[in-house]
Amino acid sequence: MLKGRNYIDPEDLSLEELDELFDLGKEIVKNEKDFIHVCDGKILATLFYEPSTRTRFSFEAAMLRLGGGVIGFSEPGSSSVAKGETLADTLRTVSCYSDIIAMRHPKEGAPQYGHNACTVPLINAGDGGHQHPTQTLTDLFTILSAKGKFDGMTIGLCGDLKFGRTVHSLIKAMSRYSNNKFVLISPDELKVPNYIKEQVLDKKSIPYTEVERLEDVIDDLDVLYMTRVQKERFFNEADYVRLKDSYVLDLEKLKNAKKDLAILHPLPRVNEIAVEVDDDPRAWYFRQVKNGMYIRMALIAKLLGVK
Amino acid sequence: MLKGRNYIDPEDLSLEELDELFDLGKEIVKNEKDFIHVCDGKILATLFYEPSTRTRFSFEAAMLRLGGGVIGFSEPGSSSVAKGETLADTLRTVSCYSDIIAMRHPKEGAPQYGHNACTVPLINAGDGGHQHPTQTLTDLFTILSAKGKFDGMTIGLCGDLKFGRTVHSLIKAMSRYSNNKFVLISPDELKVPNYIKEQVLDKKSIPYTEVERLEDVIDDLDVLYMTRVQKERFFNEADYVRLKDSYVLDLEKLKNAKKDLAILHPLPRVNEIAVEVDDDPRAWYFRQVKNGMYIRMALIAKLLGVK
Amino acid sequence: MLKGRNYIDPEDLSLEELDELFDLGKEIVKNEKDFIHVCDGKILATLFYEPSTRTRFSFEAAMLRLGGGVIGFSEPGSSSVAKGETLADTLRTVSCYSDIIAMRHPKEGAPQYGHNACTVPLINAGDGGHQHPTQTLTDLFTILSAKGKFDGMTIGLCGDLKFGRTVHSLIKAMSRYSNNKFVLISPDELKVPNYIKEQVLDKKSIPYTEVERLEDVIDDLDVLYMTRVQKERFFNEADYVRLKDSYVLDLEKLKNAKKDLAILHPLPRVNEIAVEVDDDPRAWYFRQVKNGMYIRMALIAKLLGVK
Repeated sequence: MLKGRNYIDPEDLSLEELDELFDLGKEIVKNEKDFIHVCDGKILATLFYEPSTRTRFSFEAAMLRLGGGVIGFSEPGSSSVAKGETLADTLRTVSCYSDIIAMRHPKEGAPQYGHNACTVPLINAGDGGHQHPTQTLTDLFTILSAKGKFDGMTIGLCGDLKFGRTVHSLIKAMSRYSNNKFVLISPDELKVPNYIKEQVLDKKSIPYTEVERLEDVIDDLDVLYMTRVQKERFFNEADYVRLKDSYVLDLEKLKNAKKDLAILHPLPRVNEIAVEVDDDPRAWYFRQVKNGMYIRMALIAKLLGVK
Repeated sequence: MLKGRNYIDPEDLSLEELDELFDLGKEIVKNEKDFIHVCDGKILATLFYEPSTRTRFSFEAAMLRLGGGVIGFSEPGSSSVAKGETLADTLRTVSCYSDIIAMRHPKEGAPQYGHNACTVPLINAGDGGHQHPTQTLTDLFTILSAKGKFDGMTIGLCGDLKFGRTVHSLIKAMSRYSNNKFVLISPDELKVPNYIKEQVLDKKSIPYTEVERLEDVIDDLDVLYMTRVQKERFFNEADYVRLKDSYVLDLEKLKNAKKDLAILHPLPRVNEIAVEVDDDPRAWYFRQVKNGMYIRMALIAKLLGVK
Repeated sequence: MLKGRNYIDPEDLSLEELDELFDLGKEIVKNEKDFIHVCDGKILATLFYEPSTRTRFSFEAAMLRLGGGVIGFSEPGSSSVAKGETLADTLRTVSCYSDIIAMRHPKEGAPQYGHNACTVPLINAGDGGHQHPTQTLTDLFTILSAKGKFDGMTIGLCGDLKFGRTVHSLIKAMSRYSNNKFVLISPDELKVPNYIKEQVLDKKSIPYTEVERLEDVIDDLDVLYMTRVQKERFFNEADYVRLKDSYVLDLEKLKNAKKDLAILHPLPRVNEIAVEVDDDPRAWYFRQVKNGMYIRMALIAKLLGVK
């Protein structure tokens, strides 16, 4: 039963609850028209203390497609609601106007701190470098759409694996399912932090390998999650020059990849996936955008208890 | 008959019209679902020449909960509609897109100046330090919800009674009902201006007392309207230090207050009401926020003539 | 069949398609209530890389009146969606959230460049000084409303005919109909560019005259399209002083104008039409604003294929 709950940390939902959510997501994709009035008269508040047009659009489109309305602000400058009052008071006040709140906040832990003040469900739309649980839902729902399952796969994660919070969350999320193994592809400077390897992968005895070059491992992968490698993350220029092309996915690198590989990317991309890949049936990143909206529709409907 | 009217000054509505509005407000609170399509296809324009997230949210949520849509801008920077054209032309233009307009403007009298250009109802959502009539409606509707009546009460107003426009409007509004008396609680520097005492209270022979300390009078009150006292309003530091705790409401001060006291505050608060008071059944300020939305729903529906 | 098409250049629509659109526009004006749910569950994205409150309001009001929802940003600062990604990626991403996109962009040709990335219909809401095709639709629909036809008229265009893109588009658009003639009223510095005279008027053998003073020709006109003349466009102060009053329309100048003259203006105006003219039945410029919303409703409904 998800009605009335918050969604702040990806692990707030059990595997059974995730299944329930993905089932609803699939139903929405299939029969979108059946859902266009389920939130009539309901309101989502999008409180973005940090701009994120993409995430905001996804939440707003989700609520509008359910027939609900949206109020909110999109950047700190507009948030006069916050001036001179505590985040708790703001959330309690906005709870009076809305039926559900999606909050983006630059401070880690802001939703944990604020949720007690809310009298309506609170969704964490990203808190600093900490969590972005609806991105994780998006990634999972896309893997499910592409592969039909969550287990028994070889999952490659490529790029900046040190600072990318979506990568950390996805490793944790996929580690809850059985028989997966990870291939972690990054320069030495940008490897997955030890606490994740120790507390998640080693603890659950999940096999993983760490490599430097995408081309060496791409043929084994069932899922490839790409992220951007920023030049300024490298310690020295020589390493950057030597490695940068390894983190650019193009048709050449895809030559011997599996026919049913699913390529994901949280977007926006800069140049880490060549545009020529976009039309390849293995490119799932734009369908991932659409899935992000559908799974947010499912989440909103579940937390509001209208479905 | 309120259809097609403007609402610019709190006294634009007769007591009978107010009753009609509050009756509709009560009906909306009771059967909100019956109203979620009454404004289908209608549009509210929120023109905020001065930011006020809270008031804007309240108007927008009100219209959305009635099934209507919202267009608008939320701060001066976005109001390119105004560049190089008169306020009258802007209002006449926006009248073409919308069915009703809520305008917030930093200049006193802007709505009086602009309403002739509107071809749709205009609501004053605050004009400088002058009027904020939907806040007054909110305050009245909350008093009615809490006390079931508008007359025969002892009403305490506490804090900055000199500059607070909501206080002045509430005194005027409650002076229209019989057998009320006022207790005006403020430091000497921040007393209710003489013109209000002379032209409203004395003229109507309404009893009032002026005191410095909340703790001396709280036990007599039926309604307590709190506002913030800003340090910079005091003439000298010594007075501020001596008095500041008198204007902070906490459970200690509430000890011998009436069991059915109603505590209101226009919000946001800084520290003038301790958080410990929030859960006391006498705390009405968050319900006041919700009432603000409901009474705006009633106002919009009445001015549009859909109810 | 307009379903699924883009609308980027005014000439993207054939005369037959324009007729189809205007027929729907007239039906909407007549029976607006029949249309308030035709876009339920659909979303318009308004991507304004350059602020234009008026045009944005018109699009948003149009979609809301059809029952649809709106997402978007209203100025460059809010468009974090664009940071670090190509316009093509932004448009492809926004296509995932929305069913139709209206884009305003400061760069000429941006919609031509971007439309291939869109997987939903793209409407050009203005690209720099280049095109603003929905303004042209607005102008045409207003002429049709006022005069009942598009041919056999004497059309005066007055003011800055050199830099005004709406003027150029209107000349092109009205040149597609038969038996019109143009009277081009402007100071020498601000005459219609030669390429328009040569490639449009001369090529189609459409008669036109060029004059300096409105008062000399106003009596012959069936349609008068006013635009603003900015002082800084003049080469010397003397010319400005000599001519400026010629470009201000007042009741005096209208004395001997035809009784069924239709006065249009793209708005906002500064002082080029005296306020005293507003109540004259020949003043169509505010009805033009309303027509702009109605014809955008028709355009959205047609491109979405819901009507």
